[in-house]
This record gives sequence, structure tokens and C-alpha cells, in this order.
Amino acid sequence: MKTIEAVTYPVHFHSQSYQDLSNLIAKNNYSTIFILVDENTFEHCYPKFIPNLATDKRIEVIEIESGEINKNIETCIGVWNAITELGGDRKSVLITLGGGVITDLGGFVASCFKRGIDFINIPTTLLSMVDASVGGKTGVDLGVLKNQIGLFANPEMVLVDTSYLETVNEREIKSGTAEIIKYGITYDVKLFNEIKNNKNLKINDLIFRAVEIKNEVVLKDPKEKDLRKILNFGHTLGHAIESFYLESENKDNLTHGEAIAIGMVCECFMSSKLLNFPKEKVAEVKETIVSIYTKTILLKEDFTAIMDLLKHDKKNVNGQVNFVLLNDYEDFKLDCKVPEELIIESMEYYNS
Amino acid sequence: MKTIEAVTYPVHFHSQSYQDLSNLIAKNNYSTIFILVDENTFEHCYPKFIPNLATDKRIEVIEIESGEINKNIETCIGVWNAITELGGDRKSVLITLGGGVITDLGGFVASCFKRGIDFINIPTTLLSMVDASVGGKTGVDLGVLKNQIGLFANPEMVLVDTSYLETVNEREIKSGTAEIIKYGITYDVKLFNEIKNNKNLKINDLIFRAVEIKNEVVLKDPKEKDLRKILNFGHTLGHAIESFYLESENKDNLTHGEAIAIGMVCECFMSSKLLNFPKEKVAEVKETIVSIYTKTILLKEDFTAIMDLLKHDKKNVNGQVNFVLLNDYEDFKLDCKVPEELIIESMEYYNS
Repeated sequence: MKTIEAVTYPVHFHSQSYQDLSNLIAKNNYSTIFILVDENTFEHCYPKFIPNLATDKRIEVIEIESGEINKNIETCIGVWNAITELGGDRKSVLITLGGGVITDLGGFVASCFKRGIDFINIPTTLLSMVDASVGGKTGVDLGVLKNQIGLFANPEMVLVDTSYLETVNEREIKSGTAEIIKYGITYDVKLFNEIKNNKNLKINDLIFRAVEIKNEVVLKDPKEKDLRKILNFGHTLGHAIESFYLESENKDNLTHGEAIAIGMVCECFMSSKLLNFPKEKVAEVKETIVSIYTKTILLKEDFTAIMDLLKHDKKNVNGQVNFVLLNDYEDFKLDCKVPEELIIESMEYYNS
Repeated sequence: MKTIEAVTYPVHFHSQSYQDLSNLIAKNNYSTIFILVDENTFEHCYPKFIPNLATDKRIEVIEIESGEINKNIETCIGVWNAITELGGDRKSVLITLGGGVITDLGGFVASCFKRGIDFINIPTTLLSMVDASVGGKTGVDLGVLKNQIGLFANPEMVLVDTSYLETVNEREIKSGTAEIIKYGITYDVKLFNEIKNNKNLKINDLIFRAVEIKNEVVLKDPKEKDLRKILNFGHTLGHAIESFYLESENKDNLTHGEAIAIGMVCECFMSSKLLNFPKEKVAEVKETIVSIYTKTILLKEDFTAIMDLLKHDKKNVNGQVNFVLLNDYEDFKLDCKVPEELIIESMEYYNS
């Protein structure tokens, strides 16, 4: 595997990655290396990671609790206080070692500490490898509203070592798969077909292609003015569903991928009603997704709460929800207004 | 008065400023105008401001409690929640109407809300006119540590209307004067001499020149790699002293200007001991400052706590405090290491 050159930083996949990381640290002469982990990545990933880091700099580990529920400003305050107490300064670097919560929150923490210190992303879940660790988005949730507070900020390097995937369970792998499906449907249908046919999947190749696509999209439109909005496909309704399960104390949370998988089925359905997206492709997407994920029936009594959460989507303007929909695979249309009844109908279609 | 062109935005002083503001709002077609105030600026400045704003856009006022003690992340969370509840979206704009707390905190809040909305600064105190509202620094305190969390982010416009100064008391005016003294000592001794001689001071001219200097410095070095560090003159020890009074429940707080005025006397003293800064100029600075500010004697028993706070200064690297000192007026030296005893001696000199 080779290196993908993102806007201001490299994404390394090859076997020399750790050497490149050590070289970067030596070159930048950091004062202290902070490593942000959660209890899982500290137990399972840190012991694999640390022997590969060749440096004589001081290393300090900061652990936060795992889970989307902890991806908030209060956790950031804890990390900022920890870095402060451990003598962090402007020449410190923060290495994020974990899934999307760690990379999103860590990037935000680093970018705001003393008006910005360097950070390096080492994603350890499929989701963070293919999505969260590249593209310059950092952030945390505000209450249950996803990524409401954050910044565009680029890491100095991303290191993708797929051997960390041995440390995560199947449900996590499936969560990341949803983002690969999204790249397939919106940008490269070959990738979707590979997953749909599910024969001899080469995970490393899928990850590489996913990062390549995300990078192409982000390079063309870093600030999400137009093209980049395709990365939100499935996420508009998906985020609202994810937030709804997050705030419902008597329901188990969905993973991010499970929620946006539902979102993609619904948004394909909307596309078929409002645009010319073919009905048989809606069925194909639904079938593929239902074959991968345990089906979560959305209760009718919950539709109102989900619709309310939709109103906080970051793409909204003047209270109007803006969907990214599809004319066909690889052919999107931005800023689609969808009548409320059709959104509800799409959830009923998913349930059916 | 004319307009100063900062890096990506104008700083308006002239009588057409409000028209320019209304034009900017119309041109950018904002969805909602949020105005951030505290209880003082809501009472005294908002009634002067709002008749000047010609717009048909929705206006929402968000009020926070005044005072440095509230310049923290918890207040930001309150503002983010308020903007969210009031339906803020990415096309919203935040106008900050207030002193340094409002402009620093408001810029940070705007820059992180949904990964960044526009903001416009309307400083209402002398300090925020000459310092906080220009230069792209935003941020809040972490505990008592000043501006520990923040970003470089530029407003869309700064509007300086000196008639707001009628709403602030003399102590606030003096607080801002300290920053003008700093520009004088480090960059333009004529400006210092005007204040020292204190004859027929034309406050509008002083403000204009101060902003002009700050803008020159920031344009040459936006990210504080070298030249911009002169703006920290007096602030290294000054911030530690300010933080110390902030955390001491049995002592009255100092204003920012009072604290950095002490810091400037002390750092001039250090400059005379470590560099060739003339002794008579140390005396001249001390005399000028003592003539303006009520003298606060620093107690010996407090020196240790102040020294501890110094260790968190943002310019520190590897635990080493870095001072900006002076060879002479308008002639600075960066990254000066100062022995602990000399820092203490400088505080004793100020006391004497």
C-alpha cells in the first residue's frame, strides 16, 4: 500500500508508516507527546502501538471513557485540564489512538488548546479509518446534537494500520461498512457492488479506496460548499435517528453506521419519489443493508421526536431541512426540500 | 477617520460604519442575526446600537453575565445552547457588542458553532477597541488560566464607535490605556510620550493609532511566530498576576490593564538587568504607570503562587518561561529566560 496525499498532510498505509511517524516527531522536535485513548484502546491498541514509536520525548497517556455519550465539551474540559496539569505547551503534540470519538474529539481539543497544537490521527476502528480520521472535520456533540461544536482542522499525519481492526468486534466493523456503502452509492458504484456481492472482500483494498474517494471529494471542496455534501448522504435523517436513540434512555443506542444505514435506505426512497432514482435500486440498497444489519424497527410513536431532531441538522438554513438526494448511483442533487409526509413515508418503507 | 484594512476584514472608524455594517449583512444574506451582550452592554450600548442597524432579518439577543470570571467554556455551552434553541444555522451571524470578554468569547463561540459561522466585533470598551477586537485571537479561560482555550479566527468586520466609551467608567478606560502604553513602549515611543505627558489627549487618535500598530504587527506575523510576540510585553508576568487575583477569593480582582501595567514595570526592570534597557527608562515607565493606576502592593507571601501560574504561560516550551524583553524602547528581544530570583526582584522593585 502507498500513501495518499491529503490537503496538507499524508495518510500512510504502508509498512513504513511507523518510521514516518517517528521521523515526523523527531523533525518537529515536540516537547511532549500526549496520547489520547479510551479504556478499550488503552488495553488493546496501546500495547501494539507503543513499541513502534521510536522517540526519546516524554510520553503522557490521557484516557477518556469510551462511547458517543462522552463525545462532549465536558470531556474536552477534562482533557484540557489533564494536558495543562501535565505541563503541555504549544510545542506538544496530541496523538489520537482510537475510533471516531477519539479522533473527532482529540482533533478539536488539540486545535483549541492554547490556540492550537499539532495532532496526529491513528484510527483503530473501520469507521474512523474510512471516515473520521480524514477530511479535516473535528468536533463534539452538544447534548445529543451530533458534532454541533467543532472546527475544520487538519492533522499533521494520519496512520492507517488495519491490524488494529483485530481489536474491534463485528458490530464495529459493520458500523464502518456503512460509510463504505455510502462512498459506493454516491461516488463509485463498483465499491457498492463489491460489498453487495460480498465475495472475497479484501478489507485493506476497501479501506484504501474509501480514503481515496473521501480525499478526492475533500480536496475538491474542503469547506463543504457543494460536492462534499455528498458525504452527508444518509446522514441527514441518519443523524436524527442516531441522536434519538442516544437521548432515549430506555432504548439501546445504535452505532453510527447502523443509524446512517437506515438513513440511506430512507433517503434512497425519497430520491425515488422526488427525483428519478430507480425503484429497483432502492430495493437493492435496502436488501443489501438489511442483510448486513440487525433490523431496528422505527416506532411510529417516535417519528415526531426524530422529525424534531432533524431541525438541528447542520445543513439547514432558515429552518428548512436540506437533503442530499440521488438522481442515480454516482449522481447527486444538493439542497432537496422533502415534505414531512415523505420523510415519514420513507421510514415506513424502511420498516416494511 | 478612515478604515483600516486588516488581514481579511475591515476595521471601520468613520461615520459611515453602520451603513457598511447593514450593507454587509444584506450582502451575505444571513438567516438570523444573533447579538451577544452582557447585562451592562444590553442596558447601555444596545439602545444606542440597534437604531443604527438597518435590516429586515430576524434579530435575537443573547445575554451573558459580565466579568472575566464568566469568560469560560461553561458560558460558551450556554451560548451554544441558546443559539441552537433559537434556531441558529450556518448562515447565522453573531455580532459581539461589548468588552474583551464578549469579543473574545463570542469569536470563539461563533468559530466553533457548526464548525464556524460569521461574526462581527463591535467593541464597547477602550481595551476591546485597541486590543481584543482586532488581531484574530479568540478564546476563553480554563479555570483561572487566561485564554488557554481558543483559536485564531477573523471577524467579517470590526466597527469602532468611540461614543460607546461614554458608557464605561474611568477604571475601564485606564484598563485599555495600559495596552496603548504597551504599543508605545514596544513599537512607537511617540504614543507613549503622549500618554506620559498627558496633555490634550485625543482619545480617538490614540485608538486609531493603536489599532493601526496592532494591525501592522499582526499582518506581518499573524500566528505569533516572532514579531507578534511583542504584543505580549508585560503580559507574561501580568497574566500570572491577573490570574492570581482572579483565583484569590479574599482579594478584589485587578482589571486586565492594571495587571499588565504592573507586568510592564516588572518586565522593564528585568530588561534593564538582563539587556541594556536604560535604568532611567524603567523609572519613567514606572512613574507613568503609578501616576495612572491605584498602586496594588504585591505581597511577598503571594509570590510563590504567582510564580506557579507563570508556568502555564502560552509561550512556554519545555517548562521554560519565555519573556519578551526590551533592549530599548521600540527594540525587543524574544525568548528571554529570566532567573526566578530576578522575577521576584522585579516585583519588589514595582512595590518599592
